Amino acid sequence: MDKDSGSIFEQQLERNDANCAALSPLALIERTAAVFPEHNAVVYGELERSWAQTYERARRLASALRARGVERGDTVALMLANTPEMLEAHFAIPMTGAVLNALDVRQEARTIAFILQDSEAKVLITDTQFAETVEKALDTLPSPPLVIDVEDPRGPAGERLGKLDCEALLAEGDPAFPWELPPDEWDAIAVSYTSGTTGNPKAVVHHHRGAYLSAVSHILVWGMAQQPVYLWTLPMFERNGWCFPWTIAAMAGTHVCLRQTRAEGVLEAIRRHRVSHFCASPAVLSTLLAAPAKLRRRFDHPVRVMTAGAPSASVVAAIEAMGIELTHVYGLTEAHGSATVCAWQPRWNTQPPEQRARLKARQGVRYPMLEGLMVADRETLEPVPKDGHTIGEVLLRGNGVMKGYLKSALATEEAFAGGWLHTGDLAVWHPDGYLEIKDRSKDIITSGGEKLSSLEIESVLCEHPAIMEAAVVARADEQLREAPCAFVSLKPDAADVSAEEIIEFCRQNLTHLKVPKTVVFYDLPKTSSGKVQKFKLRAYAWRL
Amino acid sequence: MDKDSGSIFEQQLERNDANCAALSPLALIERTAAVFPEHNAVVYGELERSWAQTYERARRLASALRARGVERGDTVALMLANTPEMLEAHFAIPMTGAVLNALDVRQEARTIAFILQDSEAKVLITDTQFAETVEKALDTLPSPPLVIDVEDPRGPAGERLGKLDCEALLAEGDPAFPWELPPDEWDAIAVSYTSGTTGNPKAVVHHHRGAYLSAVSHILVWGMAQQPVYLWTLPMFERNGWCFPWTIAAMAGTHVCLRQTRAEGVLEAIRRHRVSHFCASPAVLSTLLAAPAKLRRRFDHPVRVMTAGAPSASVVAAIEAMGIELTHVYGLTEAHGSATVCAWQPRWNTQPPEQRARLKARQGVRYPMLEGLMVADRETLEPVPKDGHTIGEVLLRGNGVMKGYLKSALATEEAFAGGWLHTGDLAVWHPDGYLEIKDRSKDIITSGGEKLSSLEIESVLCEHPAIMEAAVVARADEQLREAPCAFVSLKPDAADVSAEEIIEFCRQNLTHLKVPKTVVFYDLPKTSSGKVQKFKLRAYAWRL
Repeated sequence: MDKDSGSIFEQQLERNDANCAALSPLALIERTAAVFPEHNAVVYGELERSWAQTYERARRLASALRARGVERGDTVALMLANTPEMLEAHFAIPMTGAVLNALDVRQEARTIAFILQDSEAKVLITDTQFAETVEKALDTLPSPPLVIDVEDPRGPAGERLGKLDCEALLAEGDPAFPWELPPDEWDAIAVSYTSGTTGNPKAVVHHHRGAYLSAVSHILVWGMAQQPVYLWTLPMFERNGWCFPWTIAAMAGTHVCLRQTRAEGVLEAIRRHRVSHFCASPAVLSTLLAAPAKLRRRFDHPVRVMTAGAPSASVVAAIEAMGIELTHVYGLTEAHGSATVCAWQPRWNTQPPEQRARLKARQGVRYPMLEGLMVADRETLEPVPKDGHTIGEVLLRGNGVMKGYLKSALATEEAFAGGWLHTGDLAVWHPDGYLEIKDRSKDIITSGGEKLSSLEIESVLCEHPAIMEAAVVARADEQLREAPCAFVSLKPDAADVSAEEIIEFCRQNLTHLKVPKTVVFYDLPKTSSGKVQKFKLRAYAWRL
Repeated sequence: MDKDSGSIFEQQLERNDANCAALSPLALIERTAAVFPEHNAVVYGELERSWAQTYERARRLASALRARGVERGDTVALMLANTPEMLEAHFAIPMTGAVLNALDVRQEARTIAFILQDSEAKVLITDTQFAETVEKALDTLPSPPLVIDVEDPRGPAGERLGKLDCEALLAEGDPAFPWELPPDEWDAIAVSYTSGTTGNPKAVVHHHRGAYLSAVSHILVWGMAQQPVYLWTLPMFERNGWCFPWTIAAMAGTHVCLRQTRAEGVLEAIRRHRVSHFCASPAVLSTLLAAPAKLRRRFDHPVRVMTAGAPSASVVAAIEAMGIELTHVYGLTEAHGSATVCAWQPRWNTQPPEQRARLKARQGVRYPMLEGLMVADRETLEPVPKDGHTIGEVLLRGNGVMKGYLKSALATEEAFAGGWLHTGDLAVWHPDGYLEIKDRSKDIITSGGEKLSSLEIESVLCEHPAIMEAAVVARADEQLREAPCAFVSLKPDAADVSAEEIIEFCRQNLTHLKVPKTVVFYDLPKTSSGKVQKFKLRAYAWRL
């Protein structure tokens, strides 16, 4: 008898409607709207909407989209700021079975056009603030999507591009629209185009199962109490706001929406709404720290911020001095929520502040609900020793990982080689099991038989008093194969400094091979999200 | 083209090892042992064991069981108190792919024998305290399981029944046993025999997927912070301790084990270990309230208790006066964790204490991560109006619901009729969406065309100063079809009271039909878990 199919626990005990439901973030808003209907789901300026109202608006939007032909597997694109409409769309679009495609609003028309065409968007919901870019993009499309305008009285005025506006569409919709959970939790819920530090955006497809579990995993990491107050500083178009639209629904919390992340507005909102949680990039944290001291006075209620992208130890310490507890995570578009967290060890509480900040600046350990993480050789999948020194690639597996890349079977196969997601990020594994990211794999410099971290060289360069920003890439070298080539921009008020002086400074702080052989004064090229486009610098360096 | 299979989001985007892992509680201990290896997993008297040690012991046990032939789909039975071995078994047995069968240690030998045979237990791990019962049970079995004794120095001495003791077995095992997640998250993780208020225990089969989600759902309900301290007052054999062995692993908490739930030991443990959470039946809560005042002084740290089984409003108020915040849930063996919770509404904070306690004594709304709940007609599945008056059956659906009943396809089919789990519990639905259980369906009394709640009549009887306990069942009645028949036991120091006086008391407090026509003074028959066996009283009443 076949043991696997024959055990008594396999006989006439199948899945059915009573004991197996698709995991989907949609279940989260349904419950919260039923249990806490009057609690504020969203606060935006003077506007407040309850969970019952937000759920009703999402159902109206879903029903109106369905009436206009949006079906399971279609794409609905969003060109929106962090407004209530953006939040509602995160529920409404999956209710129709369609797939969310939130666009990075900072991108140029050409990229927007490429994405709308590639994702085969049937509908585009767009804030009039972005009308100029969107119009240019639409003009180039052979069959443009149905355009729905969002006219936000709190936003800058802008041209209407479509025949329909969002409120008119909602008025058409059925507030009791009988949406259903997806027939399969593996159904796509979102497609996110990476902003592309290499020039070619990839379309990452996420699934309901992963979105649900990723949303819940944040609750565990933060040990989040019921009814948090969450401030939107992170763009909701970035990896669906790391899944927080759904996390906050699960805990019946309140979303505080903001169109802009100016320091004054953020700090005022935290105080006024007693914000308990927010997410922010290190750049936004630096903005907060640059605010006038009066605004930066310590908060008298608990505030927690989640940040990714390796904040410096000094930023960590300064943010915590404001009474904001910082959680350092690491994520990537290919993993829907977060992939790692620098989980805090109680024994670290007794360390001096600088050491605590240094420990916290590491990317850490696997996120709850992510099943596997290792730092390993990308070819052999052999884990590197936990010595804090040997560099390997960060490899992940688990339910938060994407379905794959849209229309790119080869890229999908490569990304999942050996049954692990290859992140392309290089890290060391410390003896305590915490990983620390050293570089992107394509940014590593192979010189004289050694692998050099461009990040390490950049961080030394940034310690030079005259340097504002630095980026280091490989340049061909006859003797060593490759050698570091530094691109630097100087501070506006910096004293004149020569390339030789900078090289001398590096000699004093780096081992021989790591010292740049070339220093170029240059305005660093960046993506719309502010990442340096090293592929452009690399091309420049090879032409030198 | 077939839309469902043909969307661009379905093409070459299959599940693989990198993006889909079986949901299983085993992932929870693996992560916590890696991230918080030195944190205490368990405290038991003077014994303390870290997560690394507990994980190692679980792997040793799993490997030793595997070496003795335990494979996927086998059953391993447990006759254990709330000791570290019981906790470790909750990880070790699923690691082998086998199914946990935790026995109610209060049951008689005949029932134990029936369960061991019915579940086809291959191994029995048994605490020597229960040797007498277990030996009797084993004697009646044609092919008894392999017996492994647990000799607990903190327990009462008892005879050893097997040739192996648990520590010797662990010594055989491999601390690095390479267990794997189940090949299918629908695999059985546990089988629980209901204690049977009707005389026939049913074997409820639970799955990895449900156990995982049920374990996590408690974190949401309690808004649990990282590293809770959880006290074991609830028996771990009851529905796998409502899944808390796994919940606490997910949050890297500490399990405080106790063999007994005497008031003094419980209250002392809460204070000494700064227990943050525990679960307890209303009976245990009453025991705590009966403790000497010195022990009951208010706790100076936050303590939360989860209770099921409809605590009275006065118990709720008294427990909260001790500084213990009470969460009222409702569950049943067929749903692994909990099914409903009386989710607290912030607006209730301003209510007077008695009203708050009354609100909290309701069973409430669906648990997070349970996808469906309604109070409905059991035949038509039509929801009852939310009027606080119309009685319907509590119906559930979601991922925490059992696979079904072992070897009972017919019972499984009946339980899942119409795609909902029929709980057999009758409730009203209040206008605010909170349900309140009125009775078991088989305990309802149909009299003069009306459905009467036996619970309501019992609660009036218990208000009589002489009555200690009361149970009401239907008795045949020529005129009304059925009429209430009350069985009551008096308080030891109560004044003499006649059946007529009790009936008169009911007349003053109940509408005509609800007044018992018969009152019998009787010692109520109960199951080992303390539930009144109404089927016995019903038989008695019909013979009257």
